[in-house]
Amino acid sequence: MGKLLIVGTVAFDAIETPFGKTDKILGGAATFIGLAASQFDVDAAIVSVVGDDFPQEYLDLFSNRDLDISSLEIVPGGKTFFWKGKYHNDLNVRDTLVTELNVLADFSPVVPVGYKDADVVMLGNLHPGIQMSVINQMEKRPKLIILDTMNFWMDNSLQELLEVIKHIDVLALNDEEARQLTGEYSLVKAAQKISEMGPKYVVIKKGEHGALLFYKEQVFFAPALPLEEVFDPTGAGDTFAGGFSGYLASTVDVTFENLKNAIIHGSNLASFCVEKFGTERLLDLERQEVNQRLHQFKALTQFDIELQ
Amino acid sequence: MGKLLIVGTVAFDAIETPFGKTDKILGGAATFIGLAASQFDVDAAIVSVVGDDFPQEYLDLFSNRDLDISSLEIVPGGKTFFWKGKYHNDLNVRDTLVTELNVLADFSPVVPVGYKDADVVMLGNLHPGIQMSVINQMEKRPKLIILDTMNFWMDNSLQELLEVIKHIDVLALNDEEARQLTGEYSLVKAAQKISEMGPKYVVIKKGEHGALLFYKEQVFFAPALPLEEVFDPTGAGDTFAGGFSGYLASTVDVTFENLKNAIIHGSNLASFCVEKFGTERLLDLERQEVNQRLHQFKALTQFDIELQ
Repeated sequence: MGKLLIVGTVAFDAIETPFGKTDKILGGAATFIGLAASQFDVDAAIVSVVGDDFPQEYLDLFSNRDLDISSLEIVPGGKTFFWKGKYHNDLNVRDTLVTELNVLADFSPVVPVGYKDADVVMLGNLHPGIQMSVINQMEKRPKLIILDTMNFWMDNSLQELLEVIKHIDVLALNDEEARQLTGEYSLVKAAQKISEMGPKYVVIKKGEHGALLFYKEQVFFAPALPLEEVFDPTGAGDTFAGGFSGYLASTVDVTFENLKNAIIHGSNLASFCVEKFGTERLLDLERQEVNQRLHQFKALTQFDIELQ
Repeated sequence: MGKLLIVGTVAFDAIETPFGKTDKILGGAATFIGLAASQFDVDAAIVSVVGDDFPQEYLDLFSNRDLDISSLEIVPGGKTFFWKGKYHNDLNVRDTLVTELNVLADFSPVVPVGYKDADVVMLGNLHPGIQMSVINQMEKRPKLIILDTMNFWMDNSLQELLEVIKHIDVLALNDEEARQLTGEYSLVKAAQKISEMGPKYVVIKKGEHGALLFYKEQVFFAPALPLEEVFDPTGAGDTFAGGFSGYLASTVDVTFENLKNAIIHGSNLASFCVEKFGTERLLDLERQEVNQRLHQFKALTQFDIELQ
């Protein structure tokens, strides 16, 4: 069992999908990452910031899952980061209606002393300068630094993003972002270019079309589980990252072979996340259901051709 | 080793992609199906029609691969079916520039006597009435009837399409077509509805995103091999169908487990097809390359999580 340091947003989300809408509910990248990672035997801490409008009840959700929130800063008089979005009938498309940074505007993460030697660091989507400051606070080079990012930072903070990318082991981003970052349409070529920027591993997320893991000349693919209904995609990517990093921290094995397993665990947890609004499904998730669905992943992908 | 009956178009194609363009070259669904199926130990016949403008050289390509073309009708004074298309930079999108049905307009397929007891019947994309007439000519119920179709027939001949679908075992179509046919966005629900129309198996092709095989409550997924460059997608779906049906006819095993293998073989051959224009890559394909790429498919999808 290893240590996992999680850095990212803890937020309020208001979500509208073709199936319904919510008021302000619990959201944020670090929230989904932490809840997913807590499915594994791992010591995990969340570094983030909220306002004092953030309810104790939500803080308890983390503590009850043994997530260390001693470095989840609560700003007196501050308001928690808020995102409001609306999904189209094609759930792959969404409009952001409101983004209020609030306390996130001045966020300066402080890595807790007990996690300066974390085995795995999971940097959720944030300003690349903030991501870099976390890496700089580590006393020991982590076995694996994973970074999630998005097109917003490519548009607005490209130099800082390229700088932090030099220092990480795994870059996770979606297909369109991989194309934007490299100018290559082919994902194979895009992954090659990204690996020349620093990361040993490249994870390209394709949403309902699964995820690709590139390592040198090799590639592994995990499909998304075909579901009868996707209810709300919010947090699926972060849940994937939480399952991925949580499993790796719990096994403390960062070989390519084990990263394949981690990709499957991430996809598995993400398949639950989308079944209900926000964190709802992750919060009532039982170990047995998780194991059962792993069997489905195996049945979905394993075949028996005798090779020559 | 079993018998495979292939029905579909044999055509001239003129193709333009972002990487180049061709004059009239060999094309057509039955062409790609036949060339792919000939990779397996199988007795296969092509039922189709061409004009007398169709060169002997192309006929020889079939014969040299032991494809029975005794029921490939050559219409004296007739012109061969011609399709011209142009792909966008996003190769998933193409415009049809020319469609000249020519001899195809009066095509009335005649199943050769020696194939009225074929084990597997592969009905390539054609008018559903023509597909039905082939089924009616069989003297023995084939072990497996596979039908490929497209949105054009849903728009223009829906009743005849629904009729022929009642009589088949495997319906192969792409994701958008599955949605159109059923009115269901979820592919899981769409496959359920299709299986209620008749077919035991449903294959949903997602192009570069792979293919799903549905059987009762079970599902299997084969990814497309991530390629550095897709040069020309023309014929990839038919090549997939040819590998799928050719493997099944060669093994004469139509269990779900073996259909999984067939899906992998189909995806494997399709991954070669897109590397060059038209049939070019299929025509110079060697057994060793095919086997080698099967290893890549295995490495791409197989993982080692111990299940509980």
